[in-house]
Amino acid sequence: MTNNSVALDRVFHALADPSRRAIVQRLGRGPASVGELAKPLAMALPTVLQHLQVLEASKLIRSEKAGRVRTCHLEPAAFSSIEQWIGQQRAVWEARLDRMEAYVKTLSDKGTKHGK
Amino acid sequence: MTNNSVALDRVFHALADPSRRAIVQRLGRGPASVGELAKPLAMALPTVLQHLQVLEASKLIRSEKAGRVRTCHLEPAAFSSIEQWIGQQRAVWEARLDRMEAYVKTLSDKGTKHGK
Repeated sequence: MTNNSVALDRVFHALADPSRRAIVQRLGRGPASVGELAKPLAMALPTVLQHLQVLEASKLIRSEKAGRVRTCHLEPAAFSSIEQWIGQQRAVWEARLDRMEAYVKTLSDKGTKHGK
Repeated sequence: MTNNSVALDRVFHALADPSRRAIVQRLGRGPASVGELAKPLAMALPTVLQHLQVLEASKLIRSEKAGRVRTCHLEPAAFSSIEQWIGQQRAVWEARLDRMEAYVKTLSDKGTKHGK
């Protein structure tokens, strides 16, 4: 398993939860403190902190502490890994569909010739 | 939690595992039997079947049985949900970056005026 594979595991896993996606969505609008992130989530603070740990491990967010306040920031670059992976898969299907289309066209051209 | 949110949970969860991603990657090249999918994975058949169940629950793949052979097919449409979600997030960050850029430009224009 490559490092890249582990990074993909972490990003996909981090996004497989509605509360973590809500945090990502909120941080897209700008940095926020842990308290601000916790407010709309209606869950205990330790649970929120666990979600933030999962997001930090995936590198989708980073945080820094100033005095007693920890502020979280989105790291959009982490999305690139999964977008790139999906793009690679799409390229494979599309090449396959193109080949199938070309093959069907060959058959239909042959059919037309024989029909003449 | 909406149905769409559950669907996103399932697709992100399904892709958060290297063996499941390898299966998706293989099926991108065309349908395959469970036996063919299991061969390169070096794991017990029940484990492979569990991975296939997770992928089917996410609607990334579908399978059908003819006689004793179960054949799996990729369903690229299931990728659209996560691509759409990432696209929505990207639109929010980009709008924010554009606003920040415009603001910085305003400040630098003001600076130029005062400098004259």
